[in-house]
Amino acid sequence: MKTEIITVGTEILMGQILNTNARDLARELLKLGAGVYYQTVVGDNRGRLEEAFSCALSRADLVILSGGLGPTEDDLTRETVARVLGLPLERCPGWEKRLEKLFRRRGRPMVESNLKQALVPRGGKLLPNDRGTAPGIYLEKEDKIIVLLPGPPGELQHIFNHHVLPLLKEKLASSGQLGVLKSKVLRLVGLGESAMEEMIRPLIEKQDNPTVAPLAKRAEVHLRITAKADTPAEADKLISAKRLEIESILGEYIYGEDEETLEHAVSSLLRSKGKTLALAESCSGGLMCHRLTNIPGSSDFLLLGVVSYSNEAKINMLGVSKDILDEKGAVSKEVALMMANGARQKSKADLGVGITGIAGPGGATPGKPVGLTYLALVAPDLEYCRRHEFYGSREEIKERATQTALNLLRLYLLGKLKQT
Amino acid sequence: MKTEIITVGTEILMGQILNTNARDLARELLKLGAGVYYQTVVGDNRGRLEEAFSCALSRADLVILSGGLGPTEDDLTRETVARVLGLPLERCPGWEKRLEKLFRRRGRPMVESNLKQALVPRGGKLLPNDRGTAPGIYLEKEDKIIVLLPGPPGELQHIFNHHVLPLLKEKLASSGQLGVLKSKVLRLVGLGESAMEEMIRPLIEKQDNPTVAPLAKRAEVHLRITAKADTPAEADKLISAKRLEIESILGEYIYGEDEETLEHAVSSLLRSKGKTLALAESCSGGLMCHRLTNIPGSSDFLLLGVVSYSNEAKINMLGVSKDILDEKGAVSKEVALMMANGARQKSKADLGVGITGIAGPGGATPGKPVGLTYLALVAPDLEYCRRHEFYGSREEIKERATQTALNLLRLYLLGKLKQT
Repeated sequence: MKTEIITVGTEILMGQILNTNARDLARELLKLGAGVYYQTVVGDNRGRLEEAFSCALSRADLVILSGGLGPTEDDLTRETVARVLGLPLERCPGWEKRLEKLFRRRGRPMVESNLKQALVPRGGKLLPNDRGTAPGIYLEKEDKIIVLLPGPPGELQHIFNHHVLPLLKEKLASSGQLGVLKSKVLRLVGLGESAMEEMIRPLIEKQDNPTVAPLAKRAEVHLRITAKADTPAEADKLISAKRLEIESILGEYIYGEDEETLEHAVSSLLRSKGKTLALAESCSGGLMCHRLTNIPGSSDFLLLGVVSYSNEAKINMLGVSKDILDEKGAVSKEVALMMANGARQKSKADLGVGITGIAGPGGATPGKPVGLTYLALVAPDLEYCRRHEFYGSREEIKERATQTALNLLRLYLLGKLKQT
Repeated sequence: MKTEIITVGTEILMGQILNTNARDLARELLKLGAGVYYQTVVGDNRGRLEEAFSCALSRADLVILSGGLGPTEDDLTRETVARVLGLPLERCPGWEKRLEKLFRRRGRPMVESNLKQALVPRGGKLLPNDRGTAPGIYLEKEDKIIVLLPGPPGELQHIFNHHVLPLLKEKLASSGQLGVLKSKVLRLVGLGESAMEEMIRPLIEKQDNPTVAPLAKRAEVHLRITAKADTPAEADKLISAKRLEIESILGEYIYGEDEETLEHAVSSLLRSKGKTLALAESCSGGLMCHRLTNIPGSSDFLLLGVVSYSNEAKINMLGVSKDILDEKGAVSKEVALMMANGARQKSKADLGVGITGIAGPGGATPGKPVGLTYLALVAPDLEYCRRHEFYGSREEIKERATQTALNLLRLYLLGKLKQT
């Protein structure tokens, strides 16, 4: 069933608030297998709402409108929908009584305009609103389904879940369309979007069931597998099979799935291997420490973080040699390794990480551009350091440096990082 | 100028992510006086994108498309726009060179598909992307303006602010349409939204020109002043007058305006007073250090950060007394002060901050609930420590602790924090 969501509201159109209603409705519809093909936002304007609704009717089977059902002058959804469909508005005495009771209870006078909330286009079904004065409306005309919902998110969700979902399920079931659409996101680090696509092009081009779609994120890439099936279990089976195919090609780059972040993955590995960690950060300024300490219980494995911005801090807190600092500079392989070793020794941790670089925008020197970063990892069996040139703003460079350092740790803990 | 924003992306259509790009663009356009009349979301699908773009061209003067400019198969915006407009795509050798250089620097192979990011519809202007591989495109055809922007929000905003805004302003000015709606946001810390509203209720209720609107944010509150006028100078005058009124009531809580964060404000104060700083963090896990090091040039004043999660790190790195740790516990006034003093002494900084607490969800003990935090600030003329109980998730407690500690620093540097 092709679906369009129309959100009515000048606030959203002007960017004052985010369109969470469209997001929430889309998620629920996806679970039913009713694919959302378009989302439209239009202000509280008669002509443009009429235009948007007519357009939606021409291209979708199910049109859901949210907002514009209030009692005021600029609430136009009910009237506009009725006019476009050529249906008269009829009073619903049951809802009129409910409104009267509500206003009496609140001790407020009910004005005439409130009664328009009890109007329903002929043939429509009023969907009671337990949390407010604006009911929803469900309508079928010819082969189209039209649903009107109030804008306040709590009211919208309540009416959608209790009244609209059962009606839609029945409809989809009777036409044999009730399916399940499930997604899983695989999260990858250490390769770019285009390189990833190159490696799994046949899988992406196939686009059968399940489909596979790449998504570029900051300092990582995601792959979304989406399966259609009659039951959730069948969808899961399809996803698992596709996942195996992908893993056979991209296995070592996949660090997690769905909401799992790289710091989650590294924390789980540190815990399962029983390893402790100490960090010495310069250009990343404590971001790696912040990311790892966002994980509950990180005090079990994270013993120490030192942000040694100044050379003095590198010397006094981490035992970096002044001669080497003078000779090689703070942004060098030697200093990165000494920082990692210093943090490890001071805290008696199993693993030490050192990050030194130039986050910019200032600080570049000939031969040492903004973004130049050395990442070191030391362990009882390893002394590893690699040179990188990250790009982007100061914050992006900090993020890419910590992302790459976390991936180093991940690869080491998986036994995939060897002494070079 | 009637504007439509088309966001291209299956992720948004399916409700996996919120459409922040449309919100952000709408806000910026509002400031210009270019009214957004429609927002549309469409997936990565050739036919539906074509339909949505044609529809937008028929009803808007300015069409802004975001997303779908990546290198992969399902990035279709560039090709679709060119086809609908009947324009051939032409290679931009300058951008091809830039891409080649970028891939060389990253040490990754550039594949053929990357080159499609250097294609521009004939007559279009390539808008350089400093933060990624997909440039924006600005096109005029007949009386329509078409703008293409990449989907990643940081890239979109950068290109929009630096390249699109100047072009649009010129266009609006030349057609006499450049009206002015200006906003200024005042940022406050140290009081809640309802307390703020109580203090300035008459100003909020007046709602003339300028209007004043409170906005609750995480760990701070904002006040948006919005003025309408014929010229920017007149709008500024209106805003300044209202601002003075607000300052006379809320002066000491206002730390900055617009995009200025609390870490910006504190950095400026440290710099102007010529003071250096060292941090000793426990429960905040390096977040305070991360926030301050996001400010370019923070190496001038931030000498050292230590994240001393373990007791051993507190003792070895910061000289906290083992006896006091045993007697009072790590989350105590005494330890917070010792941490602040230790960081200050080790780095010879002017000021030292100590943060120790329980970020949760685990770690609470009888009498020491999740959220309990001691914040210490030491200086040549001050030894200050205060007990707080912050609420919320682990990340929120970290944020509130650092926000409050930054405000302590701000008040001290302004001469408003006295020994208690």
